[in-house]
Amino acid sequence: MQLPYDSPKLDSLMEEAGADVLLVGTRHNIRYLCGGYYYHFYERFTAISQGVYTPLLGIPKNQPDKAFYVGIAGEIGQIQDQDIWVPEFINAGANVQPNPITSAEKTAEAIKARGLAKATIATEFHFLPSTAMDCLKKELPGATFVEATPVMEEMRAIKTPEELEIMRRITQADSEAIQDTFRNAPKDSTTSEIARILERELTNRGLLFLWVFTCAGNTMLRAPSGKVWERGEVLHLDAGGSDGDYLTDVCRMGVRGEPTPLADEIYKACLTTQDKVRAAIKPGAVCGDIYEYGNKTLKETGHHELGNFIIHGAGLVSHELPRFAPGVERKLEEGMVISIETDVRHPEEGYIKIEDTVAVTAQGCEGMGDLGRDNWAVNS
Amino acid sequence: MQLPYDSPKLDSLMEEAGADVLLVGTRHNIRYLCGGYYYHFYERFTAISQGVYTPLLGIPKNQPDKAFYVGIAGEIGQIQDQDIWVPEFINAGANVQPNPITSAEKTAEAIKARGLAKATIATEFHFLPSTAMDCLKKELPGATFVEATPVMEEMRAIKTPEELEIMRRITQADSEAIQDTFRNAPKDSTTSEIARILERELTNRGLLFLWVFTCAGNTMLRAPSGKVWERGEVLHLDAGGSDGDYLTDVCRMGVRGEPTPLADEIYKACLTTQDKVRAAIKPGAVCGDIYEYGNKTLKETGHHELGNFIIHGAGLVSHELPRFAPGVERKLEEGMVISIETDVRHPEEGYIKIEDTVAVTAQGCEGMGDLGRDNWAVNS
Repeated sequence: MQLPYDSPKLDSLMEEAGADVLLVGTRHNIRYLCGGYYYHFYERFTAISQGVYTPLLGIPKNQPDKAFYVGIAGEIGQIQDQDIWVPEFINAGANVQPNPITSAEKTAEAIKARGLAKATIATEFHFLPSTAMDCLKKELPGATFVEATPVMEEMRAIKTPEELEIMRRITQADSEAIQDTFRNAPKDSTTSEIARILERELTNRGLLFLWVFTCAGNTMLRAPSGKVWERGEVLHLDAGGSDGDYLTDVCRMGVRGEPTPLADEIYKACLTTQDKVRAAIKPGAVCGDIYEYGNKTLKETGHHELGNFIIHGAGLVSHELPRFAPGVERKLEEGMVISIETDVRHPEEGYIKIEDTVAVTAQGCEGMGDLGRDNWAVNS
Repeated sequence: MQLPYDSPKLDSLMEEAGADVLLVGTRHNIRYLCGGYYYHFYERFTAISQGVYTPLLGIPKNQPDKAFYVGIAGEIGQIQDQDIWVPEFINAGANVQPNPITSAEKTAEAIKARGLAKATIATEFHFLPSTAMDCLKKELPGATFVEATPVMEEMRAIKTPEELEIMRRITQADSEAIQDTFRNAPKDSTTSEIARILERELTNRGLLFLWVFTCAGNTMLRAPSGKVWERGEVLHLDAGGSDGDYLTDVCRMGVRGEPTPLADEIYKACLTTQDKVRAAIKPGAVCGDIYEYGNKTLKETGHHELGNFIIHGAGLVSHELPRFAPGVERKLEEGMVISIETDVRHPEEGYIKIEDTVAVTAQGCEGMGDLGRDNWAVNS
């Protein structure tokens, strides 16, 4: 059986978690385990009629040949066309009347049919609708439920070469879109208008626009708004997009006109911090040490009192593994993808920030989508 | 207190439902009750780190001055900038670590602080994360929970002039995007490529692309795929997009070259059915009767055996009120918005379908976005 994920690794993680069955319904985890598949109709919305689309994928430990997928009628064509590996498709009803209870009932039946009514089931408590969870507990009174999220985070922590290629492409596209937005924003554009320009730039590059934090001048308001990007003001564009739910998250700085000497000094403080941290990233580096080093480096720039250093894993979920905080002993491994952020929130100069994405390589790290990080994008 | 929704109507619906507090967290209902507001960062994704963004809006019956909104730190700036009416903002934590349990704990505290610990709370069972619902039940052991979805559906059933203007604009934009896609699709385009063209056409018109059902020739596969739209084949584009979460849903037909006489006959059968049903829509018309009439009309065309007639309300949620089925006695009212769909799935000619959106007016109905419905879009 050809599987699109590392099946022995999943079995081993399930063993550690004490789980007999993995049961996941989030878009990111269905995509991950089904080779990118997700029913296209519900990729971007889920509420319809009085219900919510609730697909559920069940994989018994060591028995992917007994896996099942509870979906709805409308997705059968796509599942066949994309030749999804899951051996049993279970129809939980009509396309336009998705009901989490029906999904849960069908799931409970499938679990019972596999002799697993008293099994330990790892599922996603924060993500399952309350009606689905209640139904599972009612229909499987002998079962024990444990959390699946750490299992799936661990599965996704090291990216395959194919995933790295996706991350490289989307991060580059995000950086390009940001640069073009800085340069093409007409005079007197508001940050809301600038957000719409960025959305089109991302869409034209094949990405789904997810969000942009915009901050013009020293307002500190990061939501797109009626604020005009005035001459002499800095602008930060901290933008996310996705392709097949892989996320990109990049922040670059622009200025209309020229930055003040102090703004430029702050920019360079951020850049120095980013550069030094990137130089420290390699397999074997300890996450807690990297976190402390980033903060120490920012402190050395003298701008730490208004500054923040943030570092987190990236992939199908923002802020996934690896995690960085004081004392975290986990070591970096080749194939991990990391987002590094340094910002300084200066009451007069504005919110100055750089965010990069890097992948851990055999020797160090590879910058993904570094376009525009080394200097201000100037809109003249 | 100036409220962006009909507060006496909400109070009256809560009274009927026996609810003392309304507690909603879905994007469509927060938007509806907060004048379009939703935290921009989480408009298009919600999973981050190990949690999920879970805002909760609470409104005690007859006391909007005691309403509260449980959000996260990052949205305070946007809430202030947009001057959201809700008197109390409660911060449930950091931007990147949303936790449904924290949202529920803060909500329970707010409800207790208002002396409503033993109240009946109307909430959205299918939409609340299981962890949030469990926490609410634990923290409010004396409370009774009832379903809020019918209350909120009733609130949204009749559109305001402002909502009608949004629906008119987005449905027209969807129809235009579909026509341009039919005409601009290059020779040998696959339906996946055609879907991407449509996405750009919608984005350029200010809409978020949500989905497109595509069906080229007689494949009956409605998911975008590697199937090329060949000469002589019909193509249906049944596409949805949104603006501020108001949804549009339009289906138009194209053909590369010319339709066969039978395909054209089927198209006209669909169009005749749509036209006759539209002529019957007006205030006071009974939903069950309209449903029966649509089916009877389709039957008279002689293509009913392979055909389907579907009719449903539209707005912030697809398939919302009014609902149409045999025996439904509810009468149409001015300001309701309705999607009307007729299709015939012919094994040789293909999947031929028209879907229109209309608003009930004082005298009858207004077609929204009728562009391209009367004839095939020809790609030569």
